[in-house]
Amino acid sequence: IEQRDAEAARRLTDDLHEADLGAILEQLASEQRPALIELLGDSFDFTALTELDETTRVEILEDLSPETVADGVRDLDSDDAVYILEDLDQEEREEILAQIPSVERIALKRSLDYPEDSAGRRMQTEFIAIAPFWTVGQTGDYLREAEELPEAFHEVFVVDPSYRLLGRVGLDRLLRAKRTQRIEELVDESPQLVHATDELESVARLFQRYNLISAAVVDESGRLVGLMTIDDVVDVIEEEADRDIKRLAGVGDEEMSDRLWDIIKSRLPWLCINLVTAILASAVIGLFQGELQRMVALAVLMPIVASQGGNAGTQTMTVAVRALATRALGPHNAMRVVGRELLVGLLNGVFFAVIVAVMAILRFGIVDLGVVIAAAMIINLIAASLGGILIPLALNKLKADPAVASGAFVTTITDLVGFFSFLGFAALWFG
Amino acid sequence: IEQRDAEAARRLTDDLHEADLGAILEQLASEQRPALIELLGDSFDFTALTELDETTRVEILEDLSPETVADGVRDLDSDDAVYILEDLDQEEREEILAQIPSVERIALKRSLDYPEDSAGRRMQTEFIAIAPFWTVGQTGDYLREAEELPEAFHEVFVVDPSYRLLGRVGLDRLLRAKRTQRIEELVDESPQLVHATDELESVARLFQRYNLISAAVVDESGRLVGLMTIDDVVDVIEEEADRDIKRLAGVGDEEMSDRLWDIIKSRLPWLCINLVTAILASAVIGLFQGELQRMVALAVLMPIVASQGGNAGTQTMTVAVRALATRALGPHNAMRVVGRELLVGLLNGVFFAVIVAVMAILRFGIVDLGVVIAAAMIINLIAASLGGILIPLALNKLKADPAVASGAFVTTITDLVGFFSFLGFAALWFG
Repeated sequence: IEQRDAEAARRLTDDLHEADLGAILEQLASEQRPALIELLGDSFDFTALTELDETTRVEILEDLSPETVADGVRDLDSDDAVYILEDLDQEEREEILAQIPSVERIALKRSLDYPEDSAGRRMQTEFIAIAPFWTVGQTGDYLREAEELPEAFHEVFVVDPSYRLLGRVGLDRLLRAKRTQRIEELVDESPQLVHATDELESVARLFQRYNLISAAVVDESGRLVGLMTIDDVVDVIEEEADRDIKRLAGVGDEEMSDRLWDIIKSRLPWLCINLVTAILASAVIGLFQGELQRMVALAVLMPIVASQGGNAGTQTMTVAVRALATRALGPHNAMRVVGRELLVGLLNGVFFAVIVAVMAILRFGIVDLGVVIAAAMIINLIAASLGGILIPLALNKLKADPAVASGAFVTTITDLVGFFSFLGFAALWFG
Repeated sequence: IEQRDAEAARRLTDDLHEADLGAILEQLASEQRPALIELLGDSFDFTALTELDETTRVEILEDLSPETVADGVRDLDSDDAVYILEDLDQEEREEILAQIPSVERIALKRSLDYPEDSAGRRMQTEFIAIAPFWTVGQTGDYLREAEELPEAFHEVFVVDPSYRLLGRVGLDRLLRAKRTQRIEELVDESPQLVHATDELESVARLFQRYNLISAAVVDESGRLVGLMTIDDVVDVIEEEADRDIKRLAGVGDEEMSDRLWDIIKSRLPWLCINLVTAILASAVIGLFQGELQRMVALAVLMPIVASQGGNAGTQTMTVAVRALATRALGPHNAMRVVGRELLVGLLNGVFFAVIVAVMAILRFGIVDLGVVIAAAMIINLIAASLGGILIPLALNKLKADPAVASGAFVTTITDLVGFFSFLGFAALWFG
């Protein structure tokens, strides 16, 4: 089909939803993607590009001529247009913007001027604003006759002459009202608001908390500048959770379509930090070379204590990091949670202490070895619990992202405490 | 305020959004929560309960009388009512349902009969259905005059006399159409559909893919039985990502409000599995007691190899698990991704091999020790990469959840390969 048969390609893609068109692009070889778009010409819906991975999208956009991109972007809702343009580098973005008529260009530029990850970047600047003294009938006539309306809308906003937001009216209320009713009688005067400079994460929490479908975006002076819709927020929520998962595992914002080198760059920092941790642990072991030489059983058993601690610490830390992200953990319950984790650590510690002590005695026939490993296990699981909860809480207090850094600290603690307590007790007991 | 002053309590909570009311309940001591609800009586909005953790909600519901709950639940949208009732045990649920008039009871029971985590459980059974031959004017009159309409709606559905779904009309199209136009001219005849038995996860993917706000739910024979709205889907997406994070760390569906015992139960299985892994690793070390005795440096260095492998494996695994969950990894790119991970493992392996070899030689002054640890590091990082990608892929193919089980397998592999390759090479080399 790719042999320049524009007619056939157009026919095949015509009825497709943009998401499916995006999926098709993803399946194609990377040279074929821009070819298909050029082939489809005006009938290619650029919304499809918003469905792709960032890497793939940038690749395609770089291969297309600025004119093609400018034409395609003009047909989009402003939020999709900004989404497509924001990943490009400055120079290419300017080239494309230069091809766009000035009214639209200014609107796009204003959105692009807001900081990354702010509501201003993701808002749609097409919305419907009416005056409070209109009647329902007038509003209906306006909606029927106006030409430049957004593709789809769920509410109309009510503004004063200087565009300051007075409230919103849902379409369902509008439909159910009499034609003679005035808008000001229907208006919801205290809707949940988004400020253009708000972080997308807090916007997502707001939508989630109040089950919103859309919300007005206002600037510093309370003037209506756009609206956020929930479909954008859904992506933010997914991205946020995704980032937490990946940060906990020590990978950057990696995507399946990333190139080899990007992947290595995203993973190397964490592996380097872990190497430092491992070397510290190895230095602790080095302190006890004499004991290890005399009793090789210590070398055989020591990874068990460290490994149980590492896992228990990771469990506590993961729960704490997620609870901080979803605001389920905060100053109101922090003390209670710390106390509970301490108890969990103690109980788990006693439980596993008994098991490993019995095993150590059976294996090596030395009762004292059982006592030593049991004591070390209890100490390390308590350290794991406390580290797992206190480190994320402390990082959060210091305004650092607990998901990024907690892991390194927690495993450092459990490794060091694990080896030091086990070998140290052994040195004291047998020394 | 809790001193039985119903008036004051009512005044204070009257203007609150349900989400804020939920937050207040969460802050109260557990005896005070049902007390406040009884105090507020009819003016308590049961929707607030849907904002609470499961544990807290069940506690409150068990303390309230079945009549109070039945009254409260009747005022809710059906999806919220089901959400509140589904966590209760069979007996209590029956008691509450018995207090609800039969029409509503039957609707609730039908929803509760759908399997957990299916669309039927979360759908709202209040919706607006009209006939295709109506005009826009008739529809408007119907909406204005009908009494039992859902609280908020974004579209109307078009059905035939036997309630089979013909399509949907968005409220924006309805508002913009002339009163004399027929509904059948406006209807979108192939909207995205949800089947009542669909899993919530795939419903969430559908909403996300097509940026839906709401979708009709149909039964096996294509009859309209309800609708799903995006606010429910948002929660599903968040829960799903949350579950993935927690499963990767080996904790169950733990919440901040869980009791001590539930927490221990949620974490113990994973710690037990990890203990088995650690014991296996320790057994591998035990095979080389002779070598360890002769050269204690081996005991000092061996955790470094295992620990780097464990971290690299976890990185690859986390990316793979998330990509499988979001459908970014599938049969179409699996081979390419495996090849790339292999290369990542090799390159990381060589990089860290050089570093640890130099360190080992500087520390212990034995060049051969550097060669041995370098070889082991390369082998283990390749094993980590392959394990990290192949295990989630295999579990996915076997229809098991890769997030649950991958971690145990991957760290087992990296521990065993790490210790075995390092000590084994040492035995051969110095043998």
